[in-house]
Amino acid sequence: MTLGDKGRVRTLVSSQKRTDVRFMREALAEARRAAAVEEVPVGAVIVFQGQVIARGRNRIRELKDPTAHAEVLAIRAAGQHLKSERLRETTLYTTLEPCALCAGGIVLARIPRVVFAAADPKAGAAGSVMDLLRHSQLNHRADVTGGVLPGLSRRLLQRFFRQRRGRD
Amino acid sequence: MTLGDKGRVRTLVSSQKRTDVRFMREALAEARRAAAVEEVPVGAVIVFQGQVIARGRNRIRELKDPTAHAEVLAIRAAGQHLKSERLRETTLYTTLEPCALCAGGIVLARIPRVVFAAADPKAGAAGSVMDLLRHSQLNHRADVTGGVLPGLSRRLLQRFFRQRRGRD
Repeated sequence: MTLGDKGRVRTLVSSQKRTDVRFMREALAEARRAAAVEEVPVGAVIVFQGQVIARGRNRIRELKDPTAHAEVLAIRAAGQHLKSERLRETTLYTTLEPCALCAGGIVLARIPRVVFAAADPKAGAAGSVMDLLRHSQLNHRADVTGGVLPGLSRRLLQRFFRQRRGRD
Repeated sequence: MTLGDKGRVRTLVSSQKRTDVRFMREALAEARRAAAVEEVPVGAVIVFQGQVIARGRNRIRELKDPTAHAEVLAIRAAGQHLKSERLRETTLYTTLEPCALCAGGIVLARIPRVVFAAADPKAGAAGSVMDLLRHSQLNHRADVTGGVLPGLSRRLLQRFFRQRRGRD
């Protein structure tokens, strides 16, 4: 690798990172919308060809639906948008490491890349408690990037749970 | 344990088994409805206080939704019925061992008992590939009964895939 190649790789890496930060900010905006209606603040967006094609935020309480996680709602919306149950060539951005439900949905949708902000040590299924996105026996594996703006996501969650405890 | 106790236990076990077979037949009816519209034939019902309160069948292709599994749709319908995102005191019957998505949904919904017909050696998350319903680190564990009318479920699936291959 010449000095020029190294520079090019560096530029590519930092360009990818800027893109990830930009779309994670969109997912964080969804998380804030969830918090505003007293849902646990988690948000997700799905990007295809450089554009956000689907958004989701936690709506469990509103819909009385334990499966209404941000990622599942975004996957459902993206399927509608692409008119396909396979979300190839997409990237899913989520403010919290996917749980088993959401990781299962990502595998079924064949999403090739997942970017998350904060890790979830209690239920994370992208490396924390288990790793369903790189599971040797499942028929799909995703490229996973964690820790993009994790502090912003964590602070939203901490503030939400502090306020909820205050009300109880 | 006296002879009388043994008899009572046997009666309880066989009564539970009869109940399981009865509700699995309802789940199989849902699976047949899926097959009739060329969806992979998997069906599910959720029972509360001895009554079916929610039904679901695979609708992935119809809805262009990779998360439209029978179990997820039944969980969603049961949440609406009980007006709660927690499905306590329910039993979920499904014709195929739940995958990671569905097992994740069962954990989130806190469903205490799951009964399935056929095991899924490729993606089953209730003991075959992994066991999310009895996972030491997750905050809910379900009682699981497999192998209730497995042959009926397997035959439906085999016939479906044979016909699909025939058309390709």
